[in-house]
Amino acid sequence: MNLKIYGDSISGNCLKVKWTADRLGLDYDWIETGVLNGQTRTPAFLTLNGAGQVPVVVLPDGRPLAQSNAIILHLAEGSALIPRDAYQRARMLEWLFWEQYSHEPYVAVARFQVKHLGRPVGELEPRLVERARGALARLDGAVADGGFLVGEGLSLADIALVAYSRMAGDGGLAVSDYPALAAWIGRVEQALGLGPYEA
Amino acid sequence: MNLKIYGDSISGNCLKVKWTADRLGLDYDWIETGVLNGQTRTPAFLTLNGAGQVPVVVLPDGRPLAQSNAIILHLAEGSALIPRDAYQRARMLEWLFWEQYSHEPYVAVARFQVKHLGRPVGELEPRLVERARGALARLDGAVADGGFLVGEGLSLADIALVAYSRMAGDGGLAVSDYPALAAWIGRVEQALGLGPYEA
Repeated sequence: MNLKIYGDSISGNCLKVKWTADRLGLDYDWIETGVLNGQTRTPAFLTLNGAGQVPVVVLPDGRPLAQSNAIILHLAEGSALIPRDAYQRARMLEWLFWEQYSHEPYVAVARFQVKHLGRPVGELEPRLVERARGALARLDGAVADGGFLVGEGLSLADIALVAYSRMAGDGGLAVSDYPALAAWIGRVEQALGLGPYEA
Repeated sequence: MNLKIYGDSISGNCLKVKWTADRLGLDYDWIETGVLNGQTRTPAFLTLNGAGQVPVVVLPDGRPLAQSNAIILHLAEGSALIPRDAYQRARMLEWLFWEQYSHEPYVAVARFQVKHLGRPVGELEPRLVERARGALARLDGAVADGGFLVGEGLSLADIALVAYSRMAGDGGLAVSDYPALAAWIGRVEQALGLGPYEA
């Protein structure tokens, strides 16, 4: 049985899983599961993930797994997307937890409110915008050396953090304000075989 | 050189690191670093963690590492706190990411606002309280079998999730409303050699 990915194509968290599976050459079935139309709250879906969130995967042996970053860590185990060096691997995990705590709740939420809820950029909560900008600025500094986030090559840290960074403009946050970040987004897109993000 | 843990004793995120180090029998120096008095924003501290957050550890070789859950994963690598089975390990990671995204931002923030900012419980944002209760209810269901969160024994998932769950009462969320959760907190405290939490 193929890996099944339950995901919403508008969600960067879900696209992380798709890109990781593509990069690893895994066969999978993508089951489009809408966040906006209640498909993550049906009783059947809640048996897969009691948290009612996508992405969820069902592994080839039938067992479910949730949380985008836990999923990509599991899928990529033993691959070049996870550094072999223990300290580099720990730094990659540091970025993955930071992404979910200090980047996604601001950068992705600004985008969601503007693009999917129709809120004008000027009416976003100032604290949200400030924290989103802070997250993008920190990333900009981290990739100013022209490389990837951890070690010498592409890792899960880049995949996780590029997902919503490349969509930041949807929430009124101009990626072009952060030149090193913009260049890194291009490098990661190229490594993943993606074209530039189209809003 | 000993492991150095920079942490604030009021922070569940920091206590996770202390408990993990204690459980593993690691020698360490605890460097008390206050969140409320600006000690995480000094230039010296920011060179350790550009995100300006505790906990941070400096490993015996002098290299820094941030993000509580990345730190405990690194310290506990190869120990019984991380399941050997790949799927169980992935489920443990699922809980760790869920904790930072769907539990800590509500349960810990409610506590922080009430205990450290002096906000009356009745004036907490209703959405915050609703999500905090949802997180505690989900955990209550997950431990209703009388065991631990993943597999047969204590894992990092229990350590990470007990940290703020046991303090939930500080934010006006009565742990006694969730009997299975309350019993699990007792089991984890016993396993870690901790007494009951005193507000």
